[in-house]
Amino acid sequence: MEPSTKRGWDGVQVVAANGLVHRRAFLRSGAAVAGAMMGYTFVRSAAAEPLAEDPWSLVPGGVSRPYEQRSRFEEKIARTLSNPNGDPRTSHARTPHHLINGTLTPNGLHFTIVHSGTPDIDPDKHRLVIHGLVKRPLVFTLDTLARYPMVSRMSFVECGGNSAPMFSREPIQASVQALHGLVSCAEWTGVRLSTLLEETGIDPKAKWIVAEGADSLALSRSVPVKKALDDAMIALYQNGERLMPGNGYPMRLLLPGYEGNMNVKFLRRLKLVEQPAMSYYETRTYSQILPGGKAFRFYFLQEVKSFITQPSPGLALRGPGFYEISGIAYSGNGRISKVVVSADGGKSWGEAALQAPVLPKAFTRFRMPWRWDGGPAVLQSRAWDEAGNVQPTRAQFVAERGETKEVPRVLGFPNQHYNSLTSWAVDAKGEVKHVYA
Amino acid sequence: MEPSTKRGWDGVQVVAANGLVHRRAFLRSGAAVAGAMMGYTFVRSAAAEPLAEDPWSLVPGGVSRPYEQRSRFEEKIARTLSNPNGDPRTSHARTPHHLINGTLTPNGLHFTIVHSGTPDIDPDKHRLVIHGLVKRPLVFTLDTLARYPMVSRMSFVECGGNSAPMFSREPIQASVQALHGLVSCAEWTGVRLSTLLEETGIDPKAKWIVAEGADSLALSRSVPVKKALDDAMIALYQNGERLMPGNGYPMRLLLPGYEGNMNVKFLRRLKLVEQPAMSYYETRTYSQILPGGKAFRFYFLQEVKSFITQPSPGLALRGPGFYEISGIAYSGNGRISKVVVSADGGKSWGEAALQAPVLPKAFTRFRMPWRWDGGPAVLQSRAWDEAGNVQPTRAQFVAERGETKEVPRVLGFPNQHYNSLTSWAVDAKGEVKHVYA
Repeated sequence: MEPSTKRGWDGVQVVAANGLVHRRAFLRSGAAVAGAMMGYTFVRSAAAEPLAEDPWSLVPGGVSRPYEQRSRFEEKIARTLSNPNGDPRTSHARTPHHLINGTLTPNGLHFTIVHSGTPDIDPDKHRLVIHGLVKRPLVFTLDTLARYPMVSRMSFVECGGNSAPMFSREPIQASVQALHGLVSCAEWTGVRLSTLLEETGIDPKAKWIVAEGADSLALSRSVPVKKALDDAMIALYQNGERLMPGNGYPMRLLLPGYEGNMNVKFLRRLKLVEQPAMSYYETRTYSQILPGGKAFRFYFLQEVKSFITQPSPGLALRGPGFYEISGIAYSGNGRISKVVVSADGGKSWGEAALQAPVLPKAFTRFRMPWRWDGGPAVLQSRAWDEAGNVQPTRAQFVAERGETKEVPRVLGFPNQHYNSLTSWAVDAKGEVKHVYA
Repeated sequence: MEPSTKRGWDGVQVVAANGLVHRRAFLRSGAAVAGAMMGYTFVRSAAAEPLAEDPWSLVPGGVSRPYEQRSRFEEKIARTLSNPNGDPRTSHARTPHHLINGTLTPNGLHFTIVHSGTPDIDPDKHRLVIHGLVKRPLVFTLDTLARYPMVSRMSFVECGGNSAPMFSREPIQASVQALHGLVSCAEWTGVRLSTLLEETGIDPKAKWIVAEGADSLALSRSVPVKKALDDAMIALYQNGERLMPGNGYPMRLLLPGYEGNMNVKFLRRLKLVEQPAMSYYETRTYSQILPGGKAFRFYFLQEVKSFITQPSPGLALRGPGFYEISGIAYSGNGRISKVVVSADGGKSWGEAALQAPVLPKAFTRFRMPWRWDGGPAVLQSRAWDEAGNVQPTRAQFVAERGETKEVPRVLGFPNQHYNSLTSWAVDAKGEVKHVYA
């Protein structure tokens, strides 16, 4: 993975085959090289003057609002809903990763899953109880929580079932939103759970904490006390403002790096116990079933993963020339240490630039300049984390976890914790398709 | 500023007078000390069981929306508007810093100022022209910009006139929103201006760039080429999604650390020139007039500053006991290096914890545990930046910049670039007032 010293026809440093060029070669080059590389002949542009007056420059603009709303031209940027009529079943709302950028997911577009709708909770009446194997059971209101020391952290939350369509034996033609839209990242602010457990005290017999939500099915999950004392948070704010309703308003458990549904929303109860509750949502829905029919028990961690968001299906390339390949990488184990990108289906790789700051258990945006020659290409990314884990190849992953056909769906939802590669094929027209490579 | 080793009546480490206690003393202490310090006698709580069923736990919840909206209980959290009817004058919308938390400002609550309303721009028809003293004048659409290498960064934007009420000779009784609500912080993503200038080339005679917006008054400001080549960005995304209309949709100039109005919104033109334009908004409105009647010319930088957001006016304390003092600090010079907090009007100071990551030219959240004894207190914060600058005391600031009475307002808007301390007095009832101390 040493930077290549190979140079293309115009002197630009090449890092891998099929047009991957070195970011530093571009950023440090003078205008002449940049022009040769990116060039106004590749990028659509025109002479600058005269400058026409657009209609909106000729009239006074609109009134500022108390709570700013998006432009009407952005209303098409939306989450896709699996249950738009609110039928009595699970509802998924997926993040449009191909249509946003940066490392944060805006609150309007953060993914949500609710199993019995989103409760309409009066925050002044909501209570959090901590009880069970504690020295002093306590009840906390939002007001009392506001007096404790708070912390903020960027953290991704990912559904254990994100990327489930990738278990299919044939690549499903769908957007990155449909394939990977059940992961998002936000800045969460709240009180460390360890702070509250110092208040209640812990009976040494307590090994698990059963977290329960105030939604009507009272979703509950068992969390090891060890995780609770590590980096667990009672999250009250999401990107600066109070949690969105679908993200657990007025409070949720945040377990950085652990699968989404353990980050119990509408949190109303934490009960310290000796044994896990073996609740419905931990023994059935979110248990990963393996090819032999056995299941991973309590498979909490979201492992290292990455995918390319731009280009991706639905974002066609508009002719040969320069593009930026960009995507997100994250790991429940900590920081992303490296992301490599391929434009030839994994035969050669170039190291992508990682957007600073690279934070643990948060999205890291990676970027790689690419000069598309108009020929076929297969784009992939592969990430490493600071604990030394690497995204498995698809062959490795399938060998260990299986594909959909080999696992009877009646046993549950086997398609959990996919973290292998995603491949986008670009054809001569610039159309992008999902392929296995 | 060495950590004190003084201890209070219960063994908790004290860092400054009137109840400032050491964060590490709390976080590293066992439950016994924590109980003694924060204690369930101070924090309102009750026995945990039985757990009552709230009405929202008894019925299925609501339907997920394509673009998530806030809880109806949060609708009162809003920007205050100086011009709610859209009369033909400047409109300010101020961020409610006392009602949010973390280091980011959510997009709905980011401050905005527009001088002739917010234009309703069709992004597909909007163009950015770069011309003047360049080798190749170019026109960029959103589509062409999307092909260039992008960067993301957290950056605050602050109006030069933020905190203008602090120039008053008597402390104005108002919230932190009214006093300091014209500053916000977001993650911005876009294309470095230096990248585009490599495309156009620069005539060596060019020393300034006149940036012009597509709003109906075509607000324009002159920017040194040096800043443009340093960290200037054509920002396209705000906290992950496209810019909000009031923040310059579909694109704005971002000049990290420079006063807000130079970050020209609705950006449609960058003209490279030899001399600054001496435009209305740079020679009149945003020129800082000094006590002697002269003015700072081209005073761009927003200097090091901090203020406490919690507690603050409107957030009354509910009885003696433990509270967290929290606020934000930032500097146009780079990173915040230190924030100190006083509870006795500046007689003694304790060093606050800074929320990591501490990023340059971005909000840094500081936090300090405080045990209020129910007596009078005056809360202050003071910040340093990595360049060695420190927030001036009020006496120092007034001596150099003057107060409102001493500067004839007819000369313009003298109240620019206030960066001295803010003092909140807490009375025995727990009410918080603005004072000069």
